[in-house]
Amino acid sequence: MNQPPEPKADKSGVRRHNLSLVLRTVHEAGETTRAAVAARVGLTRPAVSSLVEQLLDLGLLVESGKTFSGQAGRPGTVLKPADTGPAGLGVEINVDYVTVRVVDLTGTDRVRRTEHLDNRDATAADVLARAARIAADALDAAAERHLAPAGAGLALPGLVSGGTVRQAPNLGWNEVPAEALFAEALADLRPGTADLPVASDNEANMAALAELWSGELGDLRTFLHLTGEIGVGGAVVVHGELLRGAHGFAGEIGHLVVDAEGPRCRCGSRGCLEQYAGQAALLAAAGATDVPDLARRAGTGEPSALAALADAGRMLGRALSGAVNLLDPEAVVLGGIYPRLMPWLAPAVAGELATRVVSGLWTPDTERLRPASATTDASRGAAALVLHDVLSDPLAYAPR
Amino acid sequence: MNQPPEPKADKSGVRRHNLSLVLRTVHEAGETTRAAVAARVGLTRPAVSSLVEQLLDLGLLVESGKTFSGQAGRPGTVLKPADTGPAGLGVEINVDYVTVRVVDLTGTDRVRRTEHLDNRDATAADVLARAARIAADALDAAAERHLAPAGAGLALPGLVSGGTVRQAPNLGWNEVPAEALFAEALADLRPGTADLPVASDNEANMAALAELWSGELGDLRTFLHLTGEIGVGGAVVVHGELLRGAHGFAGEIGHLVVDAEGPRCRCGSRGCLEQYAGQAALLAAAGATDVPDLARRAGTGEPSALAALADAGRMLGRALSGAVNLLDPEAVVLGGIYPRLMPWLAPAVAGELATRVVSGLWTPDTERLRPASATTDASRGAAALVLHDVLSDPLAYAPR
Repeated sequence: MNQPPEPKADKSGVRRHNLSLVLRTVHEAGETTRAAVAARVGLTRPAVSSLVEQLLDLGLLVESGKTFSGQAGRPGTVLKPADTGPAGLGVEINVDYVTVRVVDLTGTDRVRRTEHLDNRDATAADVLARAARIAADALDAAAERHLAPAGAGLALPGLVSGGTVRQAPNLGWNEVPAEALFAEALADLRPGTADLPVASDNEANMAALAELWSGELGDLRTFLHLTGEIGVGGAVVVHGELLRGAHGFAGEIGHLVVDAEGPRCRCGSRGCLEQYAGQAALLAAAGATDVPDLARRAGTGEPSALAALADAGRMLGRALSGAVNLLDPEAVVLGGIYPRLMPWLAPAVAGELATRVVSGLWTPDTERLRPASATTDASRGAAALVLHDVLSDPLAYAPR
Repeated sequence: MNQPPEPKADKSGVRRHNLSLVLRTVHEAGETTRAAVAARVGLTRPAVSSLVEQLLDLGLLVESGKTFSGQAGRPGTVLKPADTGPAGLGVEINVDYVTVRVVDLTGTDRVRRTEHLDNRDATAADVLARAARIAADALDAAAERHLAPAGAGLALPGLVSGGTVRQAPNLGWNEVPAEALFAEALADLRPGTADLPVASDNEANMAALAELWSGELGDLRTFLHLTGEIGVGGAVVVHGELLRGAHGFAGEIGHLVVDAEGPRCRCGSRGCLEQYAGQAALLAAAGATDVPDLARRAGTGEPSALAALADAGRMLGRALSGAVNLLDPEAVVLGGIYPRLMPWLAPAVAGELATRVVSGLWTPDTERLRPASATTDASRGAAALVLHDVLSDPLAYAPR
């Protein structure tokens, strides 16, 4: 008596969980069989078969050919994630470009569009409408490949929370309801997308997720990720999760002070890292027109290019040494414009880290200071975030 | 067939968990009844009564007097955590003092010993033996109060992992097996403590835990905690957990660079925060003999004291603005020597934060920059860590 009610196992909840488990297992394997999935996840063959049938019906898995299971018994049919059906739409809006990608459930880029244009010249609404137009165009191309968006991820260069850009100093944006403006503009162009889920985050966070989920990092799960663009974005990943802080704004490494009396920054402070290592500052210091031009000049040994890169590297190293002292990461990953400039930046960055980080915290080691993978960027992360949601709850993304 | 074995509910595991749940519930309430505990934790009255009997037998709870339950039925007996029996021994070894506390299960300080002495003058083994002597003395006093240590926590001013101080620049320690040296020295003095569990951590982490568990922070669960001593220690608490980083060394805010060309620091870098806002630097700049002297001089308006505090405050603010940009905490808590210096430090710190933190990330607000509670320090946190372990698994601390 007075026994509280037994918590009931929520059977539909368990099934949803198991659908996700099976889909993720196939996704990770790339190609596998029902028997291998059952062995991997610890469910019975009949249970796995039932779950697989539902995922086939939903168009999230496909079967092809035959293979031998490697054990006694019938050969198993090969299962793969579908390369048609639900896809991730990833949109990165940065200061001087917009990139849109459509990525299928196998993780393959299927459509990619980049437009270089100065987004400081237009209103926020116009910039988001422009991004929606590029996205609509990409979705037309995706539809020809029998792909339909399961959601859209928006990567934005500023403080983002609740679907709104609270502040993006380099764009001059304040309190811009980016998700709503993008969704409305897209729905005007493609009425079928009116109820498309849209998620938004800081572009540096999205780029770090792309890196984390790229498979390129091995066991690395605690790292700092910088993206060099007009601004310098930062993200902190701790044990495989983004560190978001109290309001979702953590990671603003571009505004670490590297010279207290340095040039004024758009954020209102002075001597922020991005005044030295941001793209605009770096190109101006080197007298280069764009990043390929800078890399070419440095490659030919032009002194002003080498000096500008060494200076930027020292400032990067100074800010990073503070961040490493504070966060004790396994590695620092440099993305955006930095990977192609590593030969000239890395020595100065590494030198500052070696001198300024408390010694037990950092051992100079090429694996600890590394360029981001060539295939990862914020638009890729934004698309991956959508696919992550599909994999986490396949039923929520049943075909519309 | 081929059904995998059902995972068996581990009944003894469930009972251990429930013992902890009941003990923690009484601990949080201070005084309560079996009925109130049952209502709170969602177990039956008979189950709670059985668990309470075991906790009474273990000497972790005590009964006293009678109360009415406030509802129909028999009056319930008042339950309280025991103020005898298992206690937390907390030991802080810092550069110029050792503090030892014994804290009982109610959370009350029962014994406290501080010795001011320069630990840079002795070997690491001698310093740890000295701390063990003070601890043995405190345990003698605790035994008279019928308290016996359930474990010891060691708070140390450096990078600590695996029971070892990897590096403590201000003490000149490298790879010092502090837990083992302390435990051996203590066991020589009090043979009964030979198998006492000893846990160690950085003193700033311990101080942050003391603050987190003090009940003084309200809903605050994501904060930066600085402790001003000879060095400046830092800890990062995110959603109620210490951020430890990849190797357990996160939080070294004392070595954030605030002036790249500044004075050389013991860590090997230049212009680290502690060269400006550490106790030694601050006293030297102000021409004061100790912190009370500095506070007295500042209180009488002595210009050199006021200037030294304003300078230190600006440097603290500069380093903190970087940390806030990176971590997005709800608040910054200043402990160690800083609380008594807040009237003169806080304006300069707040000014830098207001100017240098990306504006959406920080709103000047007296609750966001605050002194640590008067009752919390690293030795308190070290003792609390032991009690936390007792509360988490009471059976592991059955009387010896």
